[in-house]
Amino acid sequence: MFIKNCWYVAGWSSEVSSSSPLSRTLLSTPVVFWRDSSNNVVAFEDMCCHRGAPLSKGRIEEDSLRCMYHGLLFDKNGTCIEIPGQDRIPPKTKVRKFPIVEKHKWIWIWMGDEEKADPEKIPATPWLDHPDWRSREGYTHYDTNYLLITDNLLDLAHIPYVHADTLGGDEAYAACTPEITRLENGVRITRWGEGIKPAPFLKGVKDFSGLVDRWNIYDFTLPAIFLMDSGMQPTGHGAKEGNRYAAAEFRSTQALTPETEESTHYFFAQPHNFAIDRPDVTDAIHQSVIKAFEEDRDMIQAQNDFLKMNTDFEMISIGADSALSYFRWLVSKTIKEEQEEKPTVQTHEA
Amino acid sequence: MFIKNCWYVAGWSSEVSSSSPLSRTLLSTPVVFWRDSSNNVVAFEDMCCHRGAPLSKGRIEEDSLRCMYHGLLFDKNGTCIEIPGQDRIPPKTKVRKFPIVEKHKWIWIWMGDEEKADPEKIPATPWLDHPDWRSREGYTHYDTNYLLITDNLLDLAHIPYVHADTLGGDEAYAACTPEITRLENGVRITRWGEGIKPAPFLKGVKDFSGLVDRWNIYDFTLPAIFLMDSGMQPTGHGAKEGNRYAAAEFRSTQALTPETEESTHYFFAQPHNFAIDRPDVTDAIHQSVIKAFEEDRDMIQAQNDFLKMNTDFEMISIGADSALSYFRWLVSKTIKEEQEEKPTVQTHEA
Amino acid sequence: MFIKNCWYVAGWSSEVSSSSPLSRTLLSTPVVFWRDSSNNVVAFEDMCCHRGAPLSKGRIEEDSLRCMYHGLLFDKNGTCIEIPGQDRIPPKTKVRKFPIVEKHKWIWIWMGDEEKADPEKIPATPWLDHPDWRSREGYTHYDTNYLLITDNLLDLAHIPYVHADTLGGDEAYAACTPEITRLENGVRITRWGEGIKPAPFLKGVKDFSGLVDRWNIYDFTLPAIFLMDSGMQPTGHGAKEGNRYAAAEFRSTQALTPETEESTHYFFAQPHNFAIDRPDVTDAIHQSVIKAFEEDRDMIQAQNDFLKMNTDFEMISIGADSALSYFRWLVSKTIKEEQEEKPTVQTHEA
Repeated sequence: MFIKNCWYVAGWSSEVSSSSPLSRTLLSTPVVFWRDSSNNVVAFEDMCCHRGAPLSKGRIEEDSLRCMYHGLLFDKNGTCIEIPGQDRIPPKTKVRKFPIVEKHKWIWIWMGDEEKADPEKIPATPWLDHPDWRSREGYTHYDTNYLLITDNLLDLAHIPYVHADTLGGDEAYAACTPEITRLENGVRITRWGEGIKPAPFLKGVKDFSGLVDRWNIYDFTLPAIFLMDSGMQPTGHGAKEGNRYAAAEFRSTQALTPETEESTHYFFAQPHNFAIDRPDVTDAIHQSVIKAFEEDRDMIQAQNDFLKMNTDFEMISIGADSALSYFRWLVSKTIKEEQEEKPTVQTHEA
Repeated sequence: MFIKNCWYVAGWSSEVSSSSPLSRTLLSTPVVFWRDSSNNVVAFEDMCCHRGAPLSKGRIEEDSLRCMYHGLLFDKNGTCIEIPGQDRIPPKTKVRKFPIVEKHKWIWIWMGDEEKADPEKIPATPWLDHPDWRSREGYTHYDTNYLLITDNLLDLAHIPYVHADTLGGDEAYAACTPEITRLENGVRITRWGEGIKPAPFLKGVKDFSGLVDRWNIYDFTLPAIFLMDSGMQPTGHGAKEGNRYAAAEFRSTQALTPETEESTHYFFAQPHNFAIDRPDVTDAIHQSVIKAFEEDRDMIQAQNDFLKMNTDFEMISIGADSALSYFRWLVSKTIKEEQEEKPTVQTHEA
Repeated sequence: MFIKNCWYVAGWSSEVSSSSPLSRTLLSTPVVFWRDSSNNVVAFEDMCCHRGAPLSKGRIEEDSLRCMYHGLLFDKNGTCIEIPGQDRIPPKTKVRKFPIVEKHKWIWIWMGDEEKADPEKIPATPWLDHPDWRSREGYTHYDTNYLLITDNLLDLAHIPYVHADTLGGDEAYAACTPEITRLENGVRITRWGEGIKPAPFLKGVKDFSGLVDRWNIYDFTLPAIFLMDSGMQPTGHGAKEGNRYAAAEFRSTQALTPETEESTHYFFAQPHNFAIDRPDVTDAIHQSVIKAFEEDRDMIQAQNDFLKMNTDFEMISIGADSALSYFRWLVSKTIKEEQEEKPTVQTHEA
């Protein structure tokens, strides 16, 4: 069960070309992505309406996509315009097309009721292609439902424990109680640690000799978009009051998109606004984040496996769970509301 | 659900010996094959009637097969004739034996009602061992139900698209409408392409400098036997009228046998009647067919995965589907008829 | 379904340390093992009571174990004594602790009703660490339910067939009818072969030039503990009457512990009391047993796969099945009795 009427990140702009289609399963639906002759991204259900063959094994012919099983040709609206050996094309011979918006290097897809697809609802991620910020394009994949990863991102007390040698650094940071604000479509979290040890991943990237003030300020919104202002600055220089002249600042930009009920696409970048003329710094930061995300996945995958083996396990709530509890409630409520509406677009869900 | 009362290809003659038994699962039933002292192929259910241990791990002792778990010995009728440490042998101590016919290098098995096993119903495949024809023994395996492969073989419009660099060559061939004749136990298909480009796999094997006439004429019969007269000849030399003096001719011989509901054995050969004294030509043809069959499998496996993810997908029929639609109807009808009869042989099916 | 109120072997003493926790799933329950500052083994359910994260990825802090997801700290009784960022600890914040007994190099665990955990019920395995005996610590893993392995161990008629080149040697041994005594919690089996060929694995270890008397005398008790006095001696020297002065003697010590319904842990050793100052002999014996256990697994895994494919297969009993039939009946009866009692400890079972 997924929220349908919202924008999901489907991929990086660089992943889709006009030479060869890309197949990616989203919300248990296979989708094919390609670019037309105007370089616009087109997304169809990745099953030829004839026999269900993957259109992603097809051939892009300017503004059309040909199924390379039996040769049916579809225009960029998904309408079949050629069936080899047959003159008449039945009117229902079409494949489903999904609304797409490409913005700041991300491709956003709408898989619900097409009439509700309002591009204004896409959150801003300007740091991904802003000249003052640098980052590399990240992707990883989980063999778990996306909500276990959502839980992880909604309680950063895990940082010092899971990421002791990368993003962590000081276990005291776990005890810094965050301020949690409920938003209509998510939650805003502000965590400050003052006078604590800097994170190990900054070594060689931005060296601090002594203690720092550290912050993680982020919105986590539906479906599962994580946009964060984070950083560190030597303590005693007024970071909390807004003075960041000596800071290492980041705008972590992350999006989870369910592949299936049991697997998740994870798109991420870690833009920084210092040393932007040094690709080695950008690389080092990116590699640290990859390592940290592998640490998360290692923990969450094991958690997932045990929870699946022990389906009647009862979790005990602690204070730090308030953000994730609220977010899970929001997800359930939204899915329930969508189901109570009569759907106007028929979708195939496993 | 499989058709039971028919002959299936179980393997190549060369696969079964008197030295070591062969295990192969057919129609969700494990079967063990071995040769007795007269070199006849014997086939039993591959589960010792004692504890279900695989008889294929057993030892052939002339005309008997010994289970190598606890030593029970079975004669070639499947009757237990020795239990170590026990004098009396309970009368029910026997394993199921299947009727077998070995013919033209293929081993045929009957897994339904033994009384109906009529060897006359086995289709002729003389090219597999005829002195005027040459081929190599082919085998491949699919992780899909056999009917998706059946579909593929019943619409050769896929050849130019799926096999562009091997069996294909000219997309115009897809539009050459075949003549389809319904048979009582299958379908006869005749496809002619006149004045088209030759197939790439002929390069170096039988070179044609210009355009050719091409034909694929085949019977596809229950359970899933594909026997084809195919070939190419320079256009304008009367191939369609029966003049084949300059042709490259083949007798493609293929059989699908379900392993389980989700997997299939595929036996094939591509006999040719030219350059029969050149093993390199036979090899080159065989390798091309293997490559082409990998192209099919790549497409069909992906089609299968998406159809399994999207169980309510509704296919849209086109004109080219008439042969496969008829064949699928024939399969369903035959299974239904078999189920309505009271079975006289109890079979184990998963 | 497993018997709960009994002692299972959880591992070798050498597997658990105070530096890094060990995770092992037993009876479909993940368990974490670690040693406290007194070197005692502690076993918890391997799921943090907060979010189910694996405590086996945690950190041992003297007499406590810290979950390295969000930092909860548990004392050696399983009670949470620290939640980072939170003063009050809810009283239910604890993880389940299992009774443990460490004895003769084996760690025994009790996963049922804690009040019934009587260490006196643990069978004696003194040869594992007795100065007059030598062995190496063995472990293997099956992807089958443990009862199929139990069946194997309860009918040693399989030895000459499955282990022709290792533990076998003379097919006549299969026909030596064992004496079977029903015990309250298992079965005692005594098998003698007189004047038969010695087992191949003794070659180079203890060479016998001629025929031997051979014995396998063992108790197989609930849940699945196999303790055997076995050996060979040149025939005619009164082995059966108790004269063992020229014997090669072993005390095979084996324990099966279900991992899940579909997989099994197998702990074993093959203590010998001759050439105890020769590690090469101990090694050679151990390697032979490993090879033999691979032969068993090869057979049993195939048997398992076919039985799962053919769920309505009906086994035919032979005389040699009396021990395994009784043992399976005993297992079913014990599980039924446990289920009819009202459980006092809530357990999580898949």
